[in-house]
Amino acid sequence: MKISNKILKKIIINIFRRFGLSKSHANISTNALINAEIVDAPSHGLSRLKMYCDRISKKIINPKPKIKIKKISQSISYIDANNSIGFVAADAGIKQAIKNAKKTGIGLVGIKNSGHYGLSSYYAEQAVKKNLIVFCFTNAPPAIAPYGAKKKLFGTNPICFGTPTSSKIPFILDTSVSLINRGKIRVAARSGKKIPTGVALDKFGKPTTDAKKALAGVQLPIGGFRGSGLAWMVDILSGVLTGGNHGGKVKDPFDDFSGPQNIGHLFIVLKSNLFVSNYNQRIKENIRRIKKLPRIKGVKEILFPGQSKFKRYKKNVNKKIKISSNVARDLKLLS
Amino acid sequence: MKISNKILKKIIINIFRRFGLSKSHANISTNALINAEIVDAPSHGLSRLKMYCDRISKKIINPKPKIKIKKISQSISYIDANNSIGFVAADAGIKQAIKNAKKTGIGLVGIKNSGHYGLSSYYAEQAVKKNLIVFCFTNAPPAIAPYGAKKKLFGTNPICFGTPTSSKIPFILDTSVSLINRGKIRVAARSGKKIPTGVALDKFGKPTTDAKKALAGVQLPIGGFRGSGLAWMVDILSGVLTGGNHGGKVKDPFDDFSGPQNIGHLFIVLKSNLFVSNYNQRIKENIRRIKKLPRIKGVKEILFPGQSKFKRYKKNVNKKIKISSNVARDLKLLS
Repeated sequence: MKISNKILKKIIINIFRRFGLSKSHANISTNALINAEIVDAPSHGLSRLKMYCDRISKKIINPKPKIKIKKISQSISYIDANNSIGFVAADAGIKQAIKNAKKTGIGLVGIKNSGHYGLSSYYAEQAVKKNLIVFCFTNAPPAIAPYGAKKKLFGTNPICFGTPTSSKIPFILDTSVSLINRGKIRVAARSGKKIPTGVALDKFGKPTTDAKKALAGVQLPIGGFRGSGLAWMVDILSGVLTGGNHGGKVKDPFDDFSGPQNIGHLFIVLKSNLFVSNYNQRIKENIRRIKKLPRIKGVKEILFPGQSKFKRYKKNVNKKIKISSNVARDLKLLS
Repeated sequence: MKISNKILKKIIINIFRRFGLSKSHANISTNALINAEIVDAPSHGLSRLKMYCDRISKKIINPKPKIKIKKISQSISYIDANNSIGFVAADAGIKQAIKNAKKTGIGLVGIKNSGHYGLSSYYAEQAVKKNLIVFCFTNAPPAIAPYGAKKKLFGTNPICFGTPTSSKIPFILDTSVSLINRGKIRVAARSGKKIPTGVALDKFGKPTTDAKKALAGVQLPIGGFRGSGLAWMVDILSGVLTGGNHGGKVKDPFDDFSGPQNIGHLFIVLKSNLFVSNYNQRIKENIRRIKKLPRIKGVKEILFPGQSKFKRYKKNVNKKIKISSNVARDLKLLS
């Protein structure tokens, strides 16, 4: 089933409105979900809509949050998101970080009492569009075993970094520190597909390609102790530092309805011309040098992070969005 | 051959003084080199001394640099290191970043016209000892092929992150984004040892365990495009942003004497109690939760990043330092 962007937007806004979100919050949340579909990241898109609504019904997402923004300094702000849906907290956070960076050169925003906010790249893009450099950190429910442990504790904890490129296409690295995205395993589990070998263990610690067994077991980090250390860093930055949950206490939004997630986020935004006046020229030259390297067989073009996502966006933005039967059922149920 | 810490320090300070460094700069550089030996990272220690001296002789490291520190704001400083030895530039940089962070909550320092500064962890530790959170980024000569390319361009570009832990042992993640440190390959090549399979390709793009062939070929990043993206991020932060060399233009300090390296560094330092008053308690709890996880067979303790380095430091700090015959020859030659 395919639905036009415009109609789909109306449907989802209405659903969020029915569940008590304000017009503005419904709009922010809908845009984030639809963007995930447009860039072909369905694991962060409409497949999560019912989960968000269920959590609102169970009163563990607050549909009418009082989001408090505390000014720590001209550069630093602290947000208590009051258990809002993550999109709304992150939207307020990135806008504040952009404002602070524009004023002082650097903006730092910590957020607590938030929830899963979808794709980090979505927020990074907002900063890059204003010609700023950006880091976004967030933690997530347990998925990865710390190096040496046989039980999962770290989330897939993305590291997201963005910079303007002097072209319309933003450089956005948005990478989990696991060998595979958890959302992809979830989608595979729903559709009965296998996952690649070597990316996950079952709950007994044995390698598995069965998506359901992988979800019950642990995901493996990139580069062993290196990836494990990066996941730990993200847990500290987004959880320990901000006042959010950390150390394996972020609840799985699909499976654990015993309370709010209290996810933390950290945004750091920098002016790109802090030190050099010709940043745009320099980054253009940087990308040019890398793109012209000799390529391995079968590779048509060396892509910078975010480039293929941008291509997918351009390709899909004016097309109808393909809706799986599961999502179609959810939309009907929730409308 | 073994030499006491104290005598070795005198020898090296004298060497640096002979090559024109001020007393203070000789001291800073010597301490950094000896620290690398104490923490068992000889690839960043005395095996590099002759290289530094050679570069001073060839006038591509400036032994008497005029280091200019420009104040961009209360939080942000920009350093032109005037082709100093990297240790001196990094020392000035981390001290300034700490000062800015103490004053305003966040300190950001960009450095250009520097050189290889040894271990990032050495600078991160300085901030952590002042109860601050820290990022250190630096780029390095070509070693890793960007994802899709068959020629090396990125350095092993470490990501370094540190935080206080409420104990004496700092949490210091200092990880290259390659599957193996280049210094380790270099040491293996010097001693005729093999490197592990799967971490490097020879110059024809074939997997190799021959250290010399690996040095002539490319190293592989952790997690394919993920590690490649992280290396690219570090190149942008430490090179493009700061005015340092980037995009494969950082010269190999051992092999290329055609000019200064102009390496860039970026330090970001944060107060740990910006958002929560009980950071130390929270990080202690975070580490406690992770350490008590069930362990995989053969693992005695789950270690946080930096913990084993600290153990090595404690074990070695009052012992004599073991000197290889190559290094002994260098010391004799340079004294």
